[in-house]
Amino acid sequence: MNFNVIRILIGKILFLVGLLMIIPLITALVYVESVRNIISYIIPMVSLMLIGGFLGYFKPGKNTKMGAREGFVIVSASWILMSLFGCIPFLISGYVTDFFTAFFEMTSGFTTTGASALTVSELSSMLYEGGHSLLMWRSFSHWIGGMGILVFILAIIMESNDGSALHILRAESPGPQVGKIVSKMKITSRILYLIYIVLTIIEIALLNLCHIWDPEMTFFDSLIISFGTAGTGGFATTPLSVGLYQPCVQYIVATFMIIFGVNFSIYYWLIIRNFKDILHNEELRIYLIVIFVAVVAITIQIWNLYSTGEEAFRHAYFQVASIISTTGYSTTDYWAGVQGRWPALSLVILVMLMFAGSCAGSTAGGMKQSRILIIAKYSRAKVRTMISPRRVEVIRLDGKPLDNKVIDSTVAFAILYVATLGVSALLISLWNPDLPTEYQEPLTMFTASLSCVSNIGPGLGGVGPGGGFAEFSWFSKLILTFEMIAGRLELYPILILLSRATYKKST
Amino acid sequence: MNFNVIRILIGKILFLVGLLMIIPLITALVYVESVRNIISYIIPMVSLMLIGGFLGYFKPGKNTKMGAREGFVIVSASWILMSLFGCIPFLISGYVTDFFTAFFEMTSGFTTTGASALTVSELSSMLYEGGHSLLMWRSFSHWIGGMGILVFILAIIMESNDGSALHILRAESPGPQVGKIVSKMKITSRILYLIYIVLTIIEIALLNLCHIWDPEMTFFDSLIISFGTAGTGGFATTPLSVGLYQPCVQYIVATFMIIFGVNFSIYYWLIIRNFKDILHNEELRIYLIVIFVAVVAITIQIWNLYSTGEEAFRHAYFQVASIISTTGYSTTDYWAGVQGRWPALSLVILVMLMFAGSCAGSTAGGMKQSRILIIAKYSRAKVRTMISPRRVEVIRLDGKPLDNKVIDSTVAFAILYVATLGVSALLISLWNPDLPTEYQEPLTMFTASLSCVSNIGPGLGGVGPGGGFAEFSWFSKLILTFEMIAGRLELYPILILLSRATYKKST
Repeated sequence: MNFNVIRILIGKILFLVGLLMIIPLITALVYVESVRNIISYIIPMVSLMLIGGFLGYFKPGKNTKMGAREGFVIVSASWILMSLFGCIPFLISGYVTDFFTAFFEMTSGFTTTGASALTVSELSSMLYEGGHSLLMWRSFSHWIGGMGILVFILAIIMESNDGSALHILRAESPGPQVGKIVSKMKITSRILYLIYIVLTIIEIALLNLCHIWDPEMTFFDSLIISFGTAGTGGFATTPLSVGLYQPCVQYIVATFMIIFGVNFSIYYWLIIRNFKDILHNEELRIYLIVIFVAVVAITIQIWNLYSTGEEAFRHAYFQVASIISTTGYSTTDYWAGVQGRWPALSLVILVMLMFAGSCAGSTAGGMKQSRILIIAKYSRAKVRTMISPRRVEVIRLDGKPLDNKVIDSTVAFAILYVATLGVSALLISLWNPDLPTEYQEPLTMFTASLSCVSNIGPGLGGVGPGGGFAEFSWFSKLILTFEMIAGRLELYPILILLSRATYKKST
Repeated sequence: MNFNVIRILIGKILFLVGLLMIIPLITALVYVESVRNIISYIIPMVSLMLIGGFLGYFKPGKNTKMGAREGFVIVSASWILMSLFGCIPFLISGYVTDFFTAFFEMTSGFTTTGASALTVSELSSMLYEGGHSLLMWRSFSHWIGGMGILVFILAIIMESNDGSALHILRAESPGPQVGKIVSKMKITSRILYLIYIVLTIIEIALLNLCHIWDPEMTFFDSLIISFGTAGTGGFATTPLSVGLYQPCVQYIVATFMIIFGVNFSIYYWLIIRNFKDILHNEELRIYLIVIFVAVVAITIQIWNLYSTGEEAFRHAYFQVASIISTTGYSTTDYWAGVQGRWPALSLVILVMLMFAGSCAGSTAGGMKQSRILIIAKYSRAKVRTMISPRRVEVIRLDGKPLDNKVIDSTVAFAILYVATLGVSALLISLWNPDLPTEYQEPLTMFTASLSCVSNIGPGLGGVGPGGGFAEFSWFSKLILTFEMIAGRLELYPILILLSRATYKKST
């Protein structure tokens, strides 16, 4: 293992995280928050920039070789460290007193999960008792985590050869096949970030336009909601989530959630007018078909639960967009809301969308539609091989035959995904002395685990849109924290970090 | 496709099913049941023996070739036909009026699921209004289905070459690797059936011994419960299941459920004193470890729910044995019982046991412990390969390296299993106008689907030990019926039957 390369890159990341804390610091100054709040940013900022600068100061020497193993270690270590240092402001400012809650919350931010372990009183104390900057930091971390901080480093800092950089991009970016959209890695990263920034700005502008009809949609709220949408995170300012705002806001947010769930290459192709590749993209097609079918099915099912058909459609559209894009915003409580629980089919569809997630190469989590597609084609091929053992089945995606390695690793990923989901559900059920009795059932445990590994936020049962993760034990929170990081980094980096074989000398 | 071979074997099976109806017919005569009951057996018996005899009458000619495809078609077609003809007595006798309920019930019998779609009044009318013979037929079908009717045919009738027979045994017997314990297929089948018969007789004898302390345990009940245990089915005479009887009965039944969940080869090795192979059998080891850990964990969790520690241990032991062996008997209602719902960890453990099931080569359902083992080792190997790409990972079972084909097909099986589970859960949520509101939630749908594909019986929520499948729509019942057959035959036969490619001319 080349520890020098690891050290330098982690140093750069820590320095950058420190630098990015300028955003909540500015927020604290704008809102004239307490000195304690300001100190709570300055302490970690200074520490991070000192530690990061120190780690990055000594050059790596001649050996700049970076393999897959180094890539995985850098990615997993830096995401854990980011969340560890990132949660310091919550603790110093005093808005959160429990370390595991703060760590969970920050990880939920960076991994764009949006699951909250804050109690309702902790959350409202931030909004009403001078803690806007903390809400900003929490949501801004969605925006940073959405595209990936290492991709950011690649886009602006890295000068290294493209081969090494690809290992990092592979480890941090979602999807079964990570390609470069242009030949240079650095340019690819810049194009991706540019698309990301432009789309975010458009959403902020549109939400501010809505301020005309909706006084609740302030400039501050427009930033919070846009960061949450762009990163497919899901943190809002109140437990009402996007239900706080008028229908126009809800339609805009829902549409942008779908937009951010699309592979960003599609937007690049749109810009360079490569319509052929867009039309041939099977993942995009299945993504839109799934959304359409789910919205129609749920709208029909919940038609009578709401006062108007428009309302039923809007809630169906918003919830489907939110879950499939793994954002986790909500406009209605489909589990324990006043309108009554949604019918079984609607909830089963939502659970399946939680599992599937959006497109590869987007900011969203979950298994990804392309993996589901590959798995479905693989299953069909396996059944066909049973029928005609001599026939060779070729699995194609977007018209091109898929490499066996991609199929193999997709299948392995699916199995590891289900295993992570199951083992975590078991572990978080182990010990929760303060969990209310109605949470104490398998649906809560399984959907809490699913929600975290898919980086969604809400689940069903106790962790439905009206509930939360506040009352889980510190042990369960820690498990879920690691599960969120594992899910965001698509399992391997964290599994490798937890594997004994990583620390053996031989390669 | 060699239709002649298919025709003859299906003919033999139908003839045999007709012949086996002698058992409920005798029961009807012993209990001096109504003429209508007696006719309800005679009609299908005569029809089955005529149709079966007719189909089997014309010899296949020269071409006796039977490949994997023929094997799958024979197995799936014969299981569907068995259930279709087998449910006729329920309908003619008038104890069940709905065809889909009767078809579900009979399939649940043959597939050793033990899930009941009968209402409480339908079930008690059989017990108290002269329908003992129907209860006997229902439970006897567990016993037939447990070891597999085609294995039975092989054991007594088949004279064909061993190669063809292996295709059938593969298609009907559970587990990733179906081997012959002795070189001759026919002898292997006979040894397996002999072990099965002897173990069943021992259980019947022990239960009759319990009659001294428990007047409820009549000779009739001892047969019903022993057939249910041996086939790992789960039909009992009342909704109380084995909770009706005294603790001594419960301990015996629990222990026999575990015994019937073990690979039958182990018993053969015991007989021939091959202790080395038994000690090296990883599946047996993991099976016993899982049972031990689950019983201890659940006993601790439910300690305070019951009046004595013995009672808590007994219920934990019984429920774990029942779920892991996919039998489905119960002694307490862990979901909605008077003692209160079991804690989350206990229920999560039960759900995982539902998924895993018992050993390959037993009469039990589920994924099978050996597949879980292979999948776990495969996952570990995949993570290790990520760490050291150049290292070759060898996956071993029982000390011997596993063939890549076995690993590949196990992985494919796991994926198809989860897919079947998910798709069925979606389909059974589609339309259920008469389902009570408390059933209308995902836990019921997912565990109903899981329970059927794993051939267990009860699930959680609406289909918990106190509930049932009676109120599902005919459409949902039909889906679950096919899911039970798919689960019992380990997916491929039914998937192949549903696949378009099967009916194409080529190869």
